[in-house]
Amino acid sequence: MSDLARQDGDAVLPAALAAEVILLCRERGLTIATAESLTGGLVCGELTAVPGASVAVRGAVVAYATDRKAALLQVPDALLADRGAVDGDVARAMAVGVRRAMLAEIGVATTGVAGPEPQDGKTVGTVFIAVSGPATDVVEELHLSGDRAQIRAETVQAALRLCRDVLRQSS
Amino acid sequence: MSDLARQDGDAVLPAALAAEVILLCRERGLTIATAESLTGGLVCGELTAVPGASVAVRGAVVAYATDRKAALLQVPDALLADRGAVDGDVARAMAVGVRRAMLAEIGVATTGVAGPEPQDGKTVGTVFIAVSGPATDVVEELHLSGDRAQIRAETVQAALRLCRDVLRQSS
Repeated sequence: MSDLARQDGDAVLPAALAAEVILLCRERGLTIATAESLTGGLVCGELTAVPGASVAVRGAVVAYATDRKAALLQVPDALLADRGAVDGDVARAMAVGVRRAMLAEIGVATTGVAGPEPQDGKTVGTVFIAVSGPATDVVEELHLSGDRAQIRAETVQAALRLCRDVLRQSS
Repeated sequence: MSDLARQDGDAVLPAALAAEVILLCRERGLTIATAESLTGGLVCGELTAVPGASVAVRGAVVAYATDRKAALLQVPDALLADRGAVDGDVARAMAVGVRRAMLAEIGVATTGVAGPEPQDGKTVGTVFIAVSGPATDVVEELHLSGDRAQIRAETVQAALRLCRDVLRQSS
């Protein structure tokens, strides 16, 4: 395990996770991009906080409005109409789509309900994160508690952790 | 002045500025999107922290890699080749471009050098921010000091303040 993100239970700072993600990308010669909904750009914000991030980070599409998920990330309109924006397959399609839009090898996606109101029939705290890479796509469903800020912060952390885990396994 | 962002010199929290920007957008029936480089998504991250932001916020394009500024924000290749990415006209073109990409009435853009290394012949702390709206485009040049985190945080605050000022004048 990297010294940058030594785990103590779940108590790993987002900044340490982001630093390890950038380090792993650099070691493996991979570029990365994010496709974000409820996190609003904060996952990419953490990644680009790391000095030297520009070697790996291509950018992000924050598709906050559902129609932008179709237009800019090629999430199928039929999928969005059928399931709404808060869905595991939508998260996967966002991660795949941002790899194309940003010409990146790794795509990281977040979609979910930060509150205060439910959305598309999903309760507050329902979140899907996805990582798409050259060899594998991974989707996780989360059920988070807390207020809007806590749900967003925990989603950022979970997305960075999933990305780190996928990168570790891609050695 | 809104109670949300009462000024005490320059000491206005980004969260209060973001809340006032969302309130002004809602009052005026305007939508907003951001085009970000050195801030990596943090301007949109602040805007979407506001409960109910989805009424106004369309999303963001974080064009961290220079080639994505051309591909996704229609910044002219010739301008980027001539001046580099850290330039006032590039900031303006990013703000205009994200209005098109996100179908938003207001575009907010950031481009600059957060460090630790200079970029495109510009010194660390050189930053351009721009706001493009239906009636006007505004560009500001900043020369910030501090480390990478401070330069990014001050850029977020300056971009939100410029956006608020443009919205106040658009009544």
